[in-house]
Amino acid sequence: MTTTIDSFAGEDILSVNQFDRASLDAIFGIAHEMRVLVERFGGAEMLQGKILANLFYEPSTRTSSSFTAAMQRLGGQVIPINNVQYSSVSKGESLPDTIRTLESYADVIVIRHPEVGAAATAAYYAEKPVINAGDGVGEHPTQALLDLFTVQEELEKIGGLTVVMVGDLRYGRTVHSLTKLLLNYNVSFVFVSPDILRLPADVLDAVQTSGHSYRQVDDLHSVIGEADVLYMTRVQRERFTDLAEYDRVKDFFVADKELMAQAKEKMIIMHPLPRVGEISYALDDDPRAAYFRQMRNGMYIRMALLAALLGKA
Amino acid sequence: MTTTIDSFAGEDILSVNQFDRASLDAIFGIAHEMRVLVERFGGAEMLQGKILANLFYEPSTRTSSSFTAAMQRLGGQVIPINNVQYSSVSKGESLPDTIRTLESYADVIVIRHPEVGAAATAAYYAEKPVINAGDGVGEHPTQALLDLFTVQEELEKIGGLTVVMVGDLRYGRTVHSLTKLLLNYNVSFVFVSPDILRLPADVLDAVQTSGHSYRQVDDLHSVIGEADVLYMTRVQRERFTDLAEYDRVKDFFVADKELMAQAKEKMIIMHPLPRVGEISYALDDDPRAAYFRQMRNGMYIRMALLAALLGKA
Amino acid sequence: MTTTIDSFAGEDILSVNQFDRASLDAIFGIAHEMRVLVERFGGAEMLQGKILANLFYEPSTRTSSSFTAAMQRLGGQVIPINNVQYSSVSKGESLPDTIRTLESYADVIVIRHPEVGAAATAAYYAEKPVINAGDGVGEHPTQALLDLFTVQEELEKIGGLTVVMVGDLRYGRTVHSLTKLLLNYNVSFVFVSPDILRLPADVLDAVQTSGHSYRQVDDLHSVIGEADVLYMTRVQRERFTDLAEYDRVKDFFVADKELMAQAKEKMIIMHPLPRVGEISYALDDDPRAAYFRQMRNGMYIRMALLAALLGKA
Repeated sequence: MTTTIDSFAGEDILSVNQFDRASLDAIFGIAHEMRVLVERFGGAEMLQGKILANLFYEPSTRTSSSFTAAMQRLGGQVIPINNVQYSSVSKGESLPDTIRTLESYADVIVIRHPEVGAAATAAYYAEKPVINAGDGVGEHPTQALLDLFTVQEELEKIGGLTVVMVGDLRYGRTVHSLTKLLLNYNVSFVFVSPDILRLPADVLDAVQTSGHSYRQVDDLHSVIGEADVLYMTRVQRERFTDLAEYDRVKDFFVADKELMAQAKEKMIIMHPLPRVGEISYALDDDPRAAYFRQMRNGMYIRMALLAALLGKA
Repeated sequence: MTTTIDSFAGEDILSVNQFDRASLDAIFGIAHEMRVLVERFGGAEMLQGKILANLFYEPSTRTSSSFTAAMQRLGGQVIPINNVQYSSVSKGESLPDTIRTLESYADVIVIRHPEVGAAATAAYYAEKPVINAGDGVGEHPTQALLDLFTVQEELEKIGGLTVVMVGDLRYGRTVHSLTKLLLNYNVSFVFVSPDILRLPADVLDAVQTSGHSYRQVDDLHSVIGEADVLYMTRVQRERFTDLAEYDRVKDFFVADKELMAQAKEKMIIMHPLPRVGEISYALDDDPRAAYFRQMRNGMYIRMALLAALLGKA
Repeated sequence: MTTTIDSFAGEDILSVNQFDRASLDAIFGIAHEMRVLVERFGGAEMLQGKILANLFYEPSTRTSSSFTAAMQRLGGQVIPINNVQYSSVSKGESLPDTIRTLESYADVIVIRHPEVGAAATAAYYAEKPVINAGDGVGEHPTQALLDLFTVQEELEKIGGLTVVMVGDLRYGRTVHSLTKLLLNYNVSFVFVSPDILRLPADVLDAVQTSGHSYRQVDDLHSVIGEADVLYMTRVQRERFTDLAEYDRVKDFFVADKELMAQAKEKMIIMHPLPRVGEISYALDDDPRAAYFRQMRNGMYIRMALLAALLGKA
């Protein structure tokens, strides 16, 4: 509908670095229209006759189902490809050959792969559009887009907000990608984590270079009152060599009723899911708990991207 | 079409205890219409734009395929979710979170799970309709409905019939559920099993309390002549601690040509399948062998339920 | 459209022996129309309301996805059935019972099975059409059809061509089937393989009996200049008891830029895929490299067969 959205036709979605403020606005506009469409009519037929190859080299029920539903709600069909034998040392088929085979059947390919760069390799060999649904410790751009879209939909703006990110900020792929996207907006960051799980240098550098306000703290309670967005992630026991340290800090990074009593009335709690214990189930009925609506926004974002890549947005 | 069917819109299907004579009549009426629809036109488009999440925590090709076909024949789409990592002791995602995620994509959820009560838990957390496709040793209500519907379709009535149930009546979930549903009708029961595999006390109590005529015997040949419905189930070797006892009794619970020579001309043989050796392949061409038509009735029942739950029946 | 195609309605596709010149012409005519349809419109709705049960007892992403896409591009739906527990010694459900169950849900069954004859068994018990998608060392007729269709589409004729088949001609199922189909045309064969991997006696007998010109050689370079069709297959290390022999011969059966410099300008390189090292990646951009277009032709052939079997061609 805008030049920006038209420019996605035939392209790949590989990294959050592809997006600037204009393209984010355009995609969020389409995604919002998709939401209205689904809420009113359940879907549309704009991708009728189109086929998505949903290629998962590692299981991810949530992401796989979300892309499937997105395609189906637009009238398209899905070829599910799970449990692909994968081993970088086996003599099995190369990724390029698999991709070239699949694009001879399908109109667009979604790929989840344990190795960094796999989606870019797929896109290099494919003539059809490729969407990166997670490539190991690399990127998972549609997750970052749905996270940011959730902020927009829930709070009706992004600029001016204080975003508090909590948990494993060092290894958390979703935190890194969302942070990069947020640099397109005038936001303040508060990064809350144990010392050993702080944001990596490259992401922190990007925040500093862009001139955004930020703080790094290790106590969630001291900053909860400022949060417009509370983005929770899991602190995994496995990350700690000193388990006494883990036991000492783990409860500092949990959202529960007591914590939320100190939070603003108008703010949201987000989580990429799955959660383990870092958000109390008792919060699920709190209107500020946005994590299930966040899942649904994932479907809208993927509907928008599929329509845009296939030239139908 | 009737008030009864309308009342299923938005509801869950968890247990045979939900059904009374009026609701059974209503569902069987819709299921029969579905049969006519499929036989004449292959299907319809009444669930176009609707999505079923088909969530199987344990494999069941028959049930999974039946729900898939039912949804597709009504123009709907299916998200297949198999091989979900499941362990009650793992730190994986909780069932409620999985369900809430899936209902953000889909319009109705079918769940098969190895633990009793899992479907009820799913239904408790879901706003969308949930159908129990088997929860361990708990219930599998659509199986019981398709069994009873088969009697209705094949013999054009249920009241007044003599139903002979054979095999493992102690552990056979399908026998318990079908028996409960049959209590809504004026039928006579004959329960045929080895002593150690007799009907459990609670089911037998229900039969007695309701005042239905019944007998418990251990010899199929002596009662075959009375059967309007012969419902066969598997007697598993694993149930016996005394294998000599197993060897002694196993052939008493097999239907073959010799047995069927003593049966009525108008009666039916049913089996929930899979069978192992308890029905001879030589009977497959006998017009009384209803077990493959029974499979097909499963699709019609599931079409009826999906349409009813989604408010389209 | 021709009497020949009409005669496929309701039939099974089990073996290349079912096809003569007239039926090949008819199927290739429909497959070419399918290609035009997909290239212009993406697909059609001629199988709307029809359901394919895609039953894979062993994994084959390529074949499974191709049938799925073929059905979907004609507006039909697919029940995917993978990871079926299979063991000839287990006490699991018999193949006939599985087939009879699936045909009660679906309109056509595709079966891939590790045992020779499994597809024929399935077809014997099924009333609905069955397509053999590979039965162990038996047949894989749709592969042979797509191979031959590729020759027709690429070179616009089959008669008069020289077909050079390379690699493991002894165990290569695709080579045997394609050779049999080619006997319907006036072609010359050159069979290129190590001594221990020559064409088996029965296939060679068929070539001789039919009076076709053929040669057996062990050096690809000496014959490449004659090839109109170069059909490559993998020479597997596992076939050799003498690994020194394997090392000595393996590079004789590889297509690379150097080899192709000696080939005709108008000819094609084919491969059933997956390849390992027998075709250099450097050839992928050579216009003579037809192996990815060959994959796409597989979808067109399967579209043609599905439409024909379901009486819609």
